[in-house]
Amino acid sequence: MKIAIDAMGGDNAPKAVVEGAEKAISHFPNLHITLMGKEEEINQYLTNRERITIVHTDETIDAMDEPVRAVRRKKNASMVLAAKQVADGEADACISAGNTGALMTAGLFVVGRIDGIERPALAPTLPTLDGKGFLLLDAGANVDAKASHLLQYAIMGSIYAEKVRNIASPRVGLLNVGTEDKKGNELTKQTFQLLKEANLNFIGNVESRDLLEGVADVVVTDGFTGNIALKTIEGTALSLFSMLKTELTSTFKSKMAAAVLKPQLKGLKSKMDYAEYGGAGLFGLKAPVIKAHGSSDATAIFSAIKQAFTMVEHEVSSTIKAAIEEEQTETN
Amino acid sequence: MKIAIDAMGGDNAPKAVVEGAEKAISHFPNLHITLMGKEEEINQYLTNRERITIVHTDETIDAMDEPVRAVRRKKNASMVLAAKQVADGEADACISAGNTGALMTAGLFVVGRIDGIERPALAPTLPTLDGKGFLLLDAGANVDAKASHLLQYAIMGSIYAEKVRNIASPRVGLLNVGTEDKKGNELTKQTFQLLKEANLNFIGNVESRDLLEGVADVVVTDGFTGNIALKTIEGTALSLFSMLKTELTSTFKSKMAAAVLKPQLKGLKSKMDYAEYGGAGLFGLKAPVIKAHGSSDATAIFSAIKQAFTMVEHEVSSTIKAAIEEEQTETN
Repeated sequence: MKIAIDAMGGDNAPKAVVEGAEKAISHFPNLHITLMGKEEEINQYLTNRERITIVHTDETIDAMDEPVRAVRRKKNASMVLAAKQVADGEADACISAGNTGALMTAGLFVVGRIDGIERPALAPTLPTLDGKGFLLLDAGANVDAKASHLLQYAIMGSIYAEKVRNIASPRVGLLNVGTEDKKGNELTKQTFQLLKEANLNFIGNVESRDLLEGVADVVVTDGFTGNIALKTIEGTALSLFSMLKTELTSTFKSKMAAAVLKPQLKGLKSKMDYAEYGGAGLFGLKAPVIKAHGSSDATAIFSAIKQAFTMVEHEVSSTIKAAIEEEQTETN
Repeated sequence: MKIAIDAMGGDNAPKAVVEGAEKAISHFPNLHITLMGKEEEINQYLTNRERITIVHTDETIDAMDEPVRAVRRKKNASMVLAAKQVADGEADACISAGNTGALMTAGLFVVGRIDGIERPALAPTLPTLDGKGFLLLDAGANVDAKASHLLQYAIMGSIYAEKVRNIASPRVGLLNVGTEDKKGNELTKQTFQLLKEANLNFIGNVESRDLLEGVADVVVTDGFTGNIALKTIEGTALSLFSMLKTELTSTFKSKMAAAVLKPQLKGLKSKMDYAEYGGAGLFGLKAPVIKAHGSSDATAIFSAIKQAFTMVEHEVSSTIKAAIEEEQTETN
């Protein structure tokens, strides 16, 4: 199996990317990795070239670049080249920790959509108290969604949860403002009906206050709402940790007690750590495209590679293709 | 000034309501309170009848009641009677900690909208790290909103922040999936233009991850998104506190250290406590209608009364009416 990685994407690139790649190589005996980026910089960190190929390019896409324009104009950017490896059949999947919008654009225009998929979805796995996590989609690929899009998200998310996260009959919930069947806006009311009729383990509406409690394995929503929910969880957790830190270091006595609690507090923080769950998949594309978190360290990059590896191994893209074809035969 | 209160609404009714009312009476010399509900139960807790009147009714609206039907059928429910006091000019404002949907319905159909207001908004004040809080509207009164509604929310929220929370030139932010001007879905893109042209201190798009950092004084959004954001903050905070508790009591040593930190941990929790900021106002109605949190204790009820008192005192409803008229004159 071959995975192409944008070595220049993310806050800690290329160091974290190279280290994560080496870790993956030693973990998966049949894995080959192609690193796209500045060869000289990559070589500073590369200790072993076994099953790792470098494709040199000087061009990169930055966090501040306007996504669509960047992908169109910077045809040799490391991220675009990684997507191109997939499009050309040189790689089975690609990964980047760079500009999210640009990766979605490259995924859509370079890798390409699966036939029948109306809109790809960005699908991160978020932490839950029990450590199992839940898949949220769409987290922002498509901010003006229709009910038919959300149905496809549910199908794709369910397949991913089953194949990659090993959850039998994943519980699919629709993110809504109340748990009652009739709740919601026009979009969720329409979606509720479609999900109810679909061949899914649809558990009905779920509320955002229950997300971290693990109320569903797959939480379906439009990209605007999903993005708001995702960033609210992130922001609230970060703000609370920062408040906790301020409170715990407010007096000498509290500082001493907090020192004793360091392992527990660290445990808490790691439970909320996205990196453990890999990156966000771009679902609905012809091959797995993974967006690793911008602040990814080597472990997070390794998790993203593992995730892409498992998606390829379990043929997630072709299973999605078959399921969408089946769904469309049923509707027609 | 006279405020009518649904004595039977909320988890701790009527005890918390009666105690909160008595506290308010001793705090505001010119305040009269009418408590609507079961006289016998109210009397169990009432220690002083000075400036407190009871209007007896046996009928109540429960949390499980379907809002519109309940308000229509239970014409003598304590909540409906409180709203009727306002409609009849017997009270200047009303408060309930009961069924949110029912109170919105009673507000809309019994108290009535201000002329020119297209949709009322539910506006809670949420905590921020600096303790100042921010106003979020709409938090769920109207789940299918238009840009013109959001403009009115911004105007109402800005007036409230200035008059009641004493913030000069409140910073109004539009909740969006990115901070750049062109970001968002159709609704936020249209709203952005309206807010830019309005006579407001509009600071542009704000992201949900920055809400608790106090990025804006007034955060404007549609009721669906606002409800999701509100419940995500609530849920994340509760889940984290529960995780924190589990971690801190995991070993004997950590339990001892956690005991030392009790005041700090309590301080953290109280910073996240909504009750300190009063209830959620229903904006756009002819008089102040306040939804106190369902789990309100006497202090939270007192805060809600204080909030209603301040809204009446500073003529928030008539100021909103004048601002909406002015806005409509400008547009026409």
